[in-house]
Amino acid sequence: MKELRIAMNGVTGRMGKNQHLIRSILAIRRDGGILSKSGETIMPVPVLVGRNVARVRRVAEQLAAEHGEIEVSDDLDALLSDERTDVYFDATLTNVRSVGVGKAIAAGKAIYCEKPTATTTDDAVALWGAAREAGVKNGVVQDKLWLPGLLKLKYLIDTGFFGRILSVRGEFGYWVFDGVHQATQRPSWNYRKEEGGGIMVDMFCHWRYVIDNLFGPVRAVTAIGATHIPERVDESGTTYRCTADDAAYGFFELDNGVICQFNSSWAVRVRRDDLLTLQVDGTKGSAVAGLRDCVVQHDSATPKPVWNPDVDSPIDYNAGWTRVPTRDPVENAFKAQWKLFLRHVADDDPFPWNLLEGAKGVQLAELGERSWRENRRIEVGTLDG
Amino acid sequence: MKELRIAMNGVTGRMGKNQHLIRSILAIRRDGGILSKSGETIMPVPVLVGRNVARVRRVAEQLAAEHGEIEVSDDLDALLSDERTDVYFDATLTNVRSVGVGKAIAAGKAIYCEKPTATTTDDAVALWGAAREAGVKNGVVQDKLWLPGLLKLKYLIDTGFFGRILSVRGEFGYWVFDGVHQATQRPSWNYRKEEGGGIMVDMFCHWRYVIDNLFGPVRAVTAIGATHIPERVDESGTTYRCTADDAAYGFFELDNGVICQFNSSWAVRVRRDDLLTLQVDGTKGSAVAGLRDCVVQHDSATPKPVWNPDVDSPIDYNAGWTRVPTRDPVENAFKAQWKLFLRHVADDDPFPWNLLEGAKGVQLAELGERSWRENRRIEVGTLDG
Amino acid sequence: MKELRIAMNGVTGRMGKNQHLIRSILAIRRDGGILSKSGETIMPVPVLVGRNVARVRRVAEQLAAEHGEIEVSDDLDALLSDERTDVYFDATLTNVRSVGVGKAIAAGKAIYCEKPTATTTDDAVALWGAAREAGVKNGVVQDKLWLPGLLKLKYLIDTGFFGRILSVRGEFGYWVFDGVHQATQRPSWNYRKEEGGGIMVDMFCHWRYVIDNLFGPVRAVTAIGATHIPERVDESGTTYRCTADDAAYGFFELDNGVICQFNSSWAVRVRRDDLLTLQVDGTKGSAVAGLRDCVVQHDSATPKPVWNPDVDSPIDYNAGWTRVPTRDPVENAFKAQWKLFLRHVADDDPFPWNLLEGAKGVQLAELGERSWRENRRIEVGTLDG
Amino acid sequence: MKELRIAMNGVTGRMGKNQHLIRSILAIRRDGGILSKSGETIMPVPVLVGRNVARVRRVAEQLAAEHGEIEVSDDLDALLSDERTDVYFDATLTNVRSVGVGKAIAAGKAIYCEKPTATTTDDAVALWGAAREAGVKNGVVQDKLWLPGLLKLKYLIDTGFFGRILSVRGEFGYWVFDGVHQATQRPSWNYRKEEGGGIMVDMFCHWRYVIDNLFGPVRAVTAIGATHIPERVDESGTTYRCTADDAAYGFFELDNGVICQFNSSWAVRVRRDDLLTLQVDGTKGSAVAGLRDCVVQHDSATPKPVWNPDVDSPIDYNAGWTRVPTRDPVENAFKAQWKLFLRHVADDDPFPWNLLEGAKGVQLAELGERSWRENRRIEVGTLDG
Repeated sequence: MKELRIAMNGVTGRMGKNQHLIRSILAIRRDGGILSKSGETIMPVPVLVGRNVARVRRVAEQLAAEHGEIEVSDDLDALLSDERTDVYFDATLTNVRSVGVGKAIAAGKAIYCEKPTATTTDDAVALWGAAREAGVKNGVVQDKLWLPGLLKLKYLIDTGFFGRILSVRGEFGYWVFDGVHQATQRPSWNYRKEEGGGIMVDMFCHWRYVIDNLFGPVRAVTAIGATHIPERVDESGTTYRCTADDAAYGFFELDNGVICQFNSSWAVRVRRDDLLTLQVDGTKGSAVAGLRDCVVQHDSATPKPVWNPDVDSPIDYNAGWTRVPTRDPVENAFKAQWKLFLRHVADDDPFPWNLLEGAKGVQLAELGERSWRENRRIEVGTLDG
Repeated sequence: MKELRIAMNGVTGRMGKNQHLIRSILAIRRDGGILSKSGETIMPVPVLVGRNVARVRRVAEQLAAEHGEIEVSDDLDALLSDERTDVYFDATLTNVRSVGVGKAIAAGKAIYCEKPTATTTDDAVALWGAAREAGVKNGVVQDKLWLPGLLKLKYLIDTGFFGRILSVRGEFGYWVFDGVHQATQRPSWNYRKEEGGGIMVDMFCHWRYVIDNLFGPVRAVTAIGATHIPERVDESGTTYRCTADDAAYGFFELDNGVICQFNSSWAVRVRRDDLLTLQVDGTKGSAVAGLRDCVVQHDSATPKPVWNPDVDSPIDYNAGWTRVPTRDPVENAFKAQWKLFLRHVADDDPFPWNLLEGAKGVQLAELGERSWRENRRIEVGTLDG
Repeated sequence: MKELRIAMNGVTGRMGKNQHLIRSILAIRRDGGILSKSGETIMPVPVLVGRNVARVRRVAEQLAAEHGEIEVSDDLDALLSDERTDVYFDATLTNVRSVGVGKAIAAGKAIYCEKPTATTTDDAVALWGAAREAGVKNGVVQDKLWLPGLLKLKYLIDTGFFGRILSVRGEFGYWVFDGVHQATQRPSWNYRKEEGGGIMVDMFCHWRYVIDNLFGPVRAVTAIGATHIPERVDESGTTYRCTADDAAYGFFELDNGVICQFNSSWAVRVRRDDLLTLQVDGTKGSAVAGLRDCVVQHDSATPKPVWNPDVDSPIDYNAGWTRVPTRDPVENAFKAQWKLFLRHVADDDPFPWNLLEGAKGVQLAELGERSWRENRRIEVGTLDG
Repeated sequence: MKELRIAMNGVTGRMGKNQHLIRSILAIRRDGGILSKSGETIMPVPVLVGRNVARVRRVAEQLAAEHGEIEVSDDLDALLSDERTDVYFDATLTNVRSVGVGKAIAAGKAIYCEKPTATTTDDAVALWGAAREAGVKNGVVQDKLWLPGLLKLKYLIDTGFFGRILSVRGEFGYWVFDGVHQATQRPSWNYRKEEGGGIMVDMFCHWRYVIDNLFGPVRAVTAIGATHIPERVDESGTTYRCTADDAAYGFFELDNGVICQFNSSWAVRVRRDDLLTLQVDGTKGSAVAGLRDCVVQHDSATPKPVWNPDVDSPIDYNAGWTRVPTRDPVENAFKAQWKLFLRHVADDDPFPWNLLEGAKGVQLAELGERSWRENRRIEVGTLDG
């Protein structure tokens, strides 16, 4: 058995604790580790660290009953200089991410971190440059790629289902209550630009890797944003002014001619299959993927509609689609990527989702905001990777 | 009974014959005319005219058995100088529309015509200017406003269902077969720029009046188009190069802050309620309108979704919507507008959908193409009406 | 942590034990107390007391295994003179309620008690007067306000769903078997006037606070009662004469012109959504609330029925309604009110459901019976609060 | 074959023409008449008469193609003095009904007329007195008794399904649009007191014969009315003030102790089985009848509910009911009563729904309004029949 010690920084937050610690690392431990290429078992060993050591300790204690003792450290520097530490994982706030990651690179540790990797493209590229020069393995969380629905979409692409892909429509979003009569379901900082909020910066990071990995390299972006709901009530019951965008509309043109039109909104009600849907249209067939499911309409099943509003449509347009079956056990998307990263560290398995890819996400968000500000389409340049 | 004689030019084509002649004018005759404000019956009397008089005559003969004798003329000039002629209707090709309409204006007839009213905004505005100066009544077909589904949407807007409207998503389109293995369902000129084809020029004319009438004045447009299917087979079985766009993606920003995001495509498969759907989201509720139906989700019925891809969604996002009932008898959209126009001619009832409004449609299509060409957002200026 | 010691009198009965002790106070203890405004934890500590100390002790013992030791006292006076006691809760029989409550007021304790607070309006007002003069905090159980279905109704009212509310129909009741062939599901005293039975006195107390809190102040009551089932079989198998009403029919006219028509009956079979349903009709929409669920029909979804008994209705009148989603975790109604009362005691949070409100319930029941007896509508006077 | 000539007065209106002429008399003719007791065929022969003879003639002409020649008269007196005339039918406006009926009584004709038979109880009783003295057969339309749903209810009563009937709940009504955004579906005079409008006067006439015939004689009435919608838009698009009640709430106490609680409203949305529902509860079972259907829950199928709002109800209260099958062909309710009346005229078959019964309907409406005005319960006295 090969143990991989992971310094986990910033996993006291909701996402870090639930997705990365409990459902990924601790879940892998429960599974008995991962089988490596050589037949060995790779066993991750978390060591929690954070600014507020009391809070870190509380998380460890809460989980102890169900998951056993979890090591805690109050000294990140010591932890990084400890040669037993193999991996540094960072889920801290974006604006301080470079501090921890920078130290870990200097210490020669393998790096894995949340997105966005930095608040500017330059910083994100610099981080990648540092890691490359130091020769440390590195990876960035791109969880949506392992959503069951997107894995099914990937299968359809890989097996040539679509023929030539023509266009992609993405719809992400749902109704986030404003907190006046119904408590809201998102934190108020999401709606404050000055605290890093805004849906464009949040979602365009995701759209970059989803598009690049599934449909091809992005060549140009045209985007506009909006703050549809100007006022909300925060966690303490106080009304505040929303300074960040709660909706982002984008066209993404790809090198291969495919056009991706993606809407993201926290001010939309959902009449579609899921909170996120991607409709892909190709010469031989189309698909609509959600988080877990995916339906297809092959050329062979495509109806031939005629425009006649004088009678009810003889075609039920939602009915002529077929569900892609779930053939394999479904795994948490974060855990799936963690397993690949741990095999990358242990076995040199390929792991293309590195800090350069992370920087590309930051870049698309940055250029999206520039497109909106400058009222024009922006070419997406190659990052000096 | 007051007869209104209508010179109908270009009703040998599919649309002109079916929608304007049979389902509108002849249907109104079958209903026994229209009741005017004064209690009189307004009875339209069609006189068919066209370039190819043999073809015109053939149409009249076909319809005689079911609809009675229909007058035919082989001389447009004589028809327009005949003082018994009250209305000139034009459904000829766009690039020759100004000829017939111009003559009819000069002859002092009331004008009603198909859209687009001209191939350039300048020409369309000139037509409006001529009609205004001549003091003739005039109108342009804007049929989608009378689609039962959009009438239901209008009811929701008028009754304040939405609270403040935030955004609109329009999806128009369906799969048009390319003619290789399956005969196509649209004429080939639609795919040839040089013959006036292209989905942007076709649909943006519609979006202009739909948006202006339902949601508010358009301030700016950002658009891109694409020719997703580069090659098709025409009516004669010959393969041809598609030179016109078969998909158009647009953002329309309104004066009131509403954002309309509309996709139009002949290369998309339909997984939605209808061939055209408009989703309107407002603070108090949302609606999705199709051609004939409309569903709503009021704030009271809006679920509070939580993002958790690890389990199947506990919410069926398509289920939480309610159909707006059909409360009144449904009428053909073209006929509904014809009745309003005939009342306008006979009784001076208001009819705001005039040649200026038609020119605005041409303008939006023109600016959409310019936005695409120049890679930027274009402000929509006020037309000199 | 701030402990609040509560002397609980009369919680050996079904309601007192299940709803107040187990599902409220002990459940709050299990939750770890309540968060106070100042960030402190409020922890209720029950001390059980009652006429029959053996029975009280038995209850405490039964619950010990699951809920831990519960303190028991056989001396109410001592308990009330103990300065550690913060709250007195009374769930004894109505006709002795004033004894315990009176002592507790004299001892300066905060008062919380079951409804009806007294057997006559005068006594109920006197209790309120005593509490007000003594300056002690006080509250009365009005649990139906926190039923999940009624909370949804409250949301609809607060968000203006109904437009102007026009009328309310309440149907409460179900079939209570008479005990001859099927054991009955209610205690026999409910059907004996001389033991405080009768559905009017029971339910009108509830209707008062439901109407006042949700729809507006009651101005007049017109009521009749009936004893539909004259004979029943009691707990011991003995047939007895029913002297109390088992059905009560009422019109309640409100200051704002709304008319509430409420039927309550233990001799009715249920063909509706729940044991209690409230249908609210307003200019913009209607709702039918049950205990936990609530369905709505907005103006937008309202059908336009035409009376034609010669054909089956083309409209399914039960189908055109939409369920209000459950957006927040559902809590026991008694517990929800207890939490508000404890915050009121600890933090001076507002708590409008005081002994005056309790007296209003007694008043409505009294006036309902008078209306029935005197065959006339009775104005509901303002209580000298 | 025995012909019965019927002078039909006032059948140019919607109800008179559709229900009495087309669906009753002409339908009976189509059926080939009615078989009399003696084996003869009774064949009704309508003669149309009315104030506006041109309008009467137009009705006759419209129907000629489908139903054959219909005789028309422009002289009611002549028609009544013609000895070939057997029956006088009156569907004129209520305030002129006594004129025609009076003449016909004087002429010794059998009388059949619409309800209300007069605008005051005194007038209605006088009409009955005159007919009785003259010894002419007479009848009043009480169509709801022959609604298929109420016939099923009658069957249940006759076969002892209910055991002893305890109470009846009637709900009549639906949402009548106010004409602002949606055209209304009722005539504006219904909402003007000065034109004979008001739902109480309209419906209490019906409730009288429904209750008397199905459940027993009415002893007392307690009622209130309301004008929930104070302003509507009339047929010409003009806003008007509503002066009549659009909702009426009533308690009807019967001699046998049964309590009928009936709500009638044009300002209510329908969440029940039909536009009119009658729920009857008895010791052995309950039923809910609509216009055409009727469902039952027998004692054997009655669930035993327990009040527990902390969990979703384990019982589906709408599911535990069984539909009464339609065993015989369904006939139009008006036609069914016409057939009985014609047999009464031809064969002396019993026909209890005479002018005295009609007067009782007027009486209940009158006393209902008095109860509302005087804020008290009113005893329903015996009419001097």
